[in-house]
Amino acid sequence: MISDPDPPKETHAMRAGPSQEEIRRHNLGALLRHVHLGGPTSRAELTSRMGLNRSTIMALTADLTAAGLVREELPRETGRAGRPSLVVRPESARVYVFALDVGVDRLVAARVGLGGTILDRREAVRRRGPFSLDEIVGPLAGFARQMHRKTRPDTVCVGVAAAFAGGVSRSDGVIRFGPNMGSVDVPFAEEMARRLAFGLPVTVGNDANLAALAEHTRGVGVGCRDLVYLHGDVGIGGGVIVNGQLLGGHEGFGGEIGHMIVNPKGRPCGCGSLGCLEAEAGERAVLEAAGRFGAQMGRDAVRAVVDAADRGDIVAQAALSRVGDWLGLGVANLVNVFNPEMVVFGGMLREVYLGSAAQVRSRLAVDALPPSRDSLRLRTSALGDDATLVGAAELAFAQVLADPLEVLARAGS
Amino acid sequence: MISDPDPPKETHAMRAGPSQEEIRRHNLGALLRHVHLGGPTSRAELTSRMGLNRSTIMALTADLTAAGLVREELPRETGRAGRPSLVVRPESARVYVFALDVGVDRLVAARVGLGGTILDRREAVRRRGPFSLDEIVGPLAGFARQMHRKTRPDTVCVGVAAAFAGGVSRSDGVIRFGPNMGSVDVPFAEEMARRLAFGLPVTVGNDANLAALAEHTRGVGVGCRDLVYLHGDVGIGGGVIVNGQLLGGHEGFGGEIGHMIVNPKGRPCGCGSLGCLEAEAGERAVLEAAGRFGAQMGRDAVRAVVDAADRGDIVAQAALSRVGDWLGLGVANLVNVFNPEMVVFGGMLREVYLGSAAQVRSRLAVDALPPSRDSLRLRTSALGDDATLVGAAELAFAQVLADPLEVLARAGS
Repeated sequence: MISDPDPPKETHAMRAGPSQEEIRRHNLGALLRHVHLGGPTSRAELTSRMGLNRSTIMALTADLTAAGLVREELPRETGRAGRPSLVVRPESARVYVFALDVGVDRLVAARVGLGGTILDRREAVRRRGPFSLDEIVGPLAGFARQMHRKTRPDTVCVGVAAAFAGGVSRSDGVIRFGPNMGSVDVPFAEEMARRLAFGLPVTVGNDANLAALAEHTRGVGVGCRDLVYLHGDVGIGGGVIVNGQLLGGHEGFGGEIGHMIVNPKGRPCGCGSLGCLEAEAGERAVLEAAGRFGAQMGRDAVRAVVDAADRGDIVAQAALSRVGDWLGLGVANLVNVFNPEMVVFGGMLREVYLGSAAQVRSRLAVDALPPSRDSLRLRTSALGDDATLVGAAELAFAQVLADPLEVLARAGS
Repeated sequence: MISDPDPPKETHAMRAGPSQEEIRRHNLGALLRHVHLGGPTSRAELTSRMGLNRSTIMALTADLTAAGLVREELPRETGRAGRPSLVVRPESARVYVFALDVGVDRLVAARVGLGGTILDRREAVRRRGPFSLDEIVGPLAGFARQMHRKTRPDTVCVGVAAAFAGGVSRSDGVIRFGPNMGSVDVPFAEEMARRLAFGLPVTVGNDANLAALAEHTRGVGVGCRDLVYLHGDVGIGGGVIVNGQLLGGHEGFGGEIGHMIVNPKGRPCGCGSLGCLEAEAGERAVLEAAGRFGAQMGRDAVRAVVDAADRGDIVAQAALSRVGDWLGLGVANLVNVFNPEMVVFGGMLREVYLGSAAQVRSRLAVDALPPSRDSLRLRTSALGDDATLVGAAELAFAQVLADPLEVLARAGS
């Protein structure tokens, strides 16, 4: 019995099957993605995991090796007799991207090698509040150029992408809002590309969306097709993976779960509403409830509240209990709406969740529908503060993984 | 500049392209879907719309005609000179499915022809409250058999599906919850198939999910890839289309937007929580706010409140204003989370929305993020009370559209 209410797929006519060349390009991308995400892998393993025969794997590997994207080497050690299978590893030192992260508190630029290795990074603390485009683009471009100057001549940059704490329009990469940054309609991507002058476009995504992707591809949510990621920075953002794909919505603004109202007569939010999840469980809510707002801000300040509660500080405990209650209500709503397999707490919400897990769980016990709650896993981010940066790197690698030879040909020209 | 934070697609290796036979089957399905959803279409139009050449369209049409799924005929009238292009129409009278609808108030069974024509239907009013499986399966099986006896010998049933007002497990079709029906773990699909004894499995979906699909494929949301559908029955259900696909979640329970809490100190909900959207804007909330609870129930009673408000009844106006406020808050939350292109109000929420649109819109103006709100369209269901039934029919047709010849061979055997 099939009881799947999934929709009949939208079908289009097929003119003909893909050509041999298209199949080859597809499989080059699939093999490259395999070693990019899975790390060095023996030919034998690739053969079995990809369901292709040995000679095809050899030919694909040879092409990727010739392009300088992977190299083959003998494994360090093999427990077996006979000729060992060569190991295919990504050319992490040679092929790289620039990943940028525009947070509320900090600017980060990193050079990330194929395979996900962070080769170099620069970071600057940023004052909070409204900013000029130049205050962001200037330092990031400077960082990228510094790192670029240090690269060897045989290296190649195949992409640039940025995680931005704001709403990013899918059609043009313009930042349409950033309630905590005072930004409206900022042509960040265009300006960033112009200032870098690497001859490469800059792709941009919402920071929490990209962190969700990162946790899905390299973090705690690997293999999980339905996942809700909550990201606490100053505000609360989110990213939702639905059936293996990031929920973007009509124009790329989906996943703004921080602006789900959980307490309609509650605290004012930066967006103009009352009682958004962000207003009730964001950084300011935690610090105010703990009587610590203003003295110290940021993730360390939130961590200090959790530490104080652990040491028995009653005010801190009450603060986390209050915030955890709203967080739990918000998560229950998301569980009912999405029926996710996993909910991940990232950014400063990792700290908040660790300090209020009992409260969150007791809310879920009351407010989430039992069938959706029963199989749910609650987890904290595996990538921590780097989740947004890792997500940006994956976005930057997307092109080369989709069509390895094409991108390399362009980058090399 | 590409600024699309969509995830890199999960890629798998391709062994080889699809065979000629696979392409043919795919295209047979695509052509059949075309006339099933779009109605009678000339060969010339199919040629241009499907991007295939004339001889391929002729061959596909010949196969589908031989299988008895479509027939070709001369168009009624043609304004053009020259030989008219033959029109391909679905064999609606010959190929059909049974669509069942298990609502809180009613049971409906219909025989629906290819192309979506309702050929025959039977309906029974159902008392509300807990039920035995037999009280549902018995009447529906009786209706289906009555209708089946009336069919001509050359007709063929290609599927049976049901819309059920409850949470349906994707893996086994068991009803896991139905807060308004007192049901837990009901093996409805299995029992329904056994009682029908048509030799066909019964697929089951949540009623609001299927209504969303119906509005997406045949209703107000055609062509809309990101859509939130709110369905008011006694409770409030929902269905969300994300990037053209129904959101199912990990186990098929996704889309329970009626159990999103909008008012945490609000009215008790059947699910055990307080202030769910269903508790604040469902049928009971409307009728109680209007001082009419208990006398008359159901959609007519809600319609009477809206009519009274239109005639100037102050109590009814205040009731709709109150309910519309919560409905608007719930919709704002969904808009922030999903960034949909369209929100559709169906079932009795159609009435409620028509009576409180100003309230809903003013809530959205405050609580929805501007970039997601600006391009949003608010609409009422085009399929009305039949949305769930139409959705069940589409679910029943899914197999024959996926592989026309295979299903027909089985059905005919």
